[in-house]
Amino acid sequence: MPRYKLTIEYDGGPFAGWQRVATGPSVQSTLEAAVEKLCGEGRDVVGAGRTDAGVHALAQAAHVDLPKPLEADVVANALNAHLRPAPISVLSAEIVADDFHARFDAVHRVYRYRILNRRADAALDRGRVWRMGRPLDAEAMDDAAQALVGAHDFTTFRDTHCQAKSPVKTLDVARVLRFGEEVELAFEARSFLHRQVRSMTGTLAEVGMGRMRVRDVAAALAAKDRARCGPVAPAEGLYLVRVDYAAK
Amino acid sequence: MPRYKLTIEYDGGPFAGWQRVATGPSVQSTLEAAVEKLCGEGRDVVGAGRTDAGVHALAQAAHVDLPKPLEADVVANALNAHLRPAPISVLSAEIVADDFHARFDAVHRVYRYRILNRRADAALDRGRVWRMGRPLDAEAMDDAAQALVGAHDFTTFRDTHCQAKSPVKTLDVARVLRFGEEVELAFEARSFLHRQVRSMTGTLAEVGMGRMRVRDVAAALAAKDRARCGPVAPAEGLYLVRVDYAAK
Repeated sequence: MPRYKLTIEYDGGPFAGWQRVATGPSVQSTLEAAVEKLCGEGRDVVGAGRTDAGVHALAQAAHVDLPKPLEADVVANALNAHLRPAPISVLSAEIVADDFHARFDAVHRVYRYRILNRRADAALDRGRVWRMGRPLDAEAMDDAAQALVGAHDFTTFRDTHCQAKSPVKTLDVARVLRFGEEVELAFEARSFLHRQVRSMTGTLAEVGMGRMRVRDVAAALAAKDRARCGPVAPAEGLYLVRVDYAAK
Repeated sequence: MPRYKLTIEYDGGPFAGWQRVATGPSVQSTLEAAVEKLCGEGRDVVGAGRTDAGVHALAQAAHVDLPKPLEADVVANALNAHLRPAPISVLSAEIVADDFHARFDAVHRVYRYRILNRRADAALDRGRVWRMGRPLDAEAMDDAAQALVGAHDFTTFRDTHCQAKSPVKTLDVARVLRFGEEVELAFEARSFLHRQVRSMTGTLAEVGMGRMRVRDVAAALAAKDRARCGPVAPAEGLYLVRVDYAAK
């Protein structure tokens, strides 16, 4: 039974998140329905990151076992045909080792958060950005972001429902850059806590608006207190950009 | 009666184009309905470019006369409030001279066309790009595009319903660049014929796929024959990027 690694783009807007849930279609359940149409039996599709409702992916990774060997391109094209019109695209499929695990073998995850910093609502990028009317100081946000880089107890930036055993994570990269009207945040780590990126983004946005100072962010982190986190940024601006694996 | 210049972003997808038509909501009619809610009476909103159904705008320009003077920011914010939830945003409003004309005074228009060049459908940019599966040679497209630059009779690249008096236009810029999976075309001119950008794009795409050579594009232009144009590119990849005016 060959195992395939899938690389997947999706618009998170219409979905209840990555994970299969009772309350509505998820990205995972939609993919599993396409896999069932392709091979005639139900198969688990295991994703690298369980993105929340409304969160997008440019290149989520997942694995699935198919009962019969098929050319990788055939798998990608057939899944895409069965996925239509859902806004999910399988960008590529490749045959991997039987013990490859999309979630546990991932060594690096990259997220991007897009803020549209202007008065007028997004017409073209609606549902794709967080539109903030108050002018943001992106340089101050970037300074504050550096306080989050490194190995820390991220309890302050962790959802109360987070199921991770430990709140300690190592944040490798946190960058805030302005491109015209857009302020873009990039975060990279081996793994993240539940809602960590949106919690950090919401807190850095407070710095951008002048409501918190750079040292307040360091103090909030050190406090290990969820109440010290700024408002959690909305899902619609968040993108899972990439998942990396070590060469085996 | 003060005249306002509006700069407008819109998602062309749900509209029958810029222009007021009997068959459904247009960008113009939606804006005029918002203006009527703001000032209590019907007013014409005159646009710089009459974009087709499905064509997007990053910064369309228009003018409108309001019966009473209002602060420019108040006009923009009030129109945006009345426009919701239509995917049209007034990015800015400014008071202009009474004889300013958004269409006739425009001296330069910039269009962009986005092609997503990959096998898998666009999930995130659906309705925002032309997805083409066959690999495109962007450099060959750029070479061919140079044959279109300058003052020419563009009959080959003009819709049969075009109402312009003359088919002669001066194309100032035509560029084709690849950014990863995306091939982007940029066109700049004082003004364009009806469907000229989509006609040129469709023809250059033939070059990209190797179905036409660079010299075939020059020959098609010289033929002044609509039948020599490649398939017209779909509306969804086209963006009116900017409209410039001479300082008065």
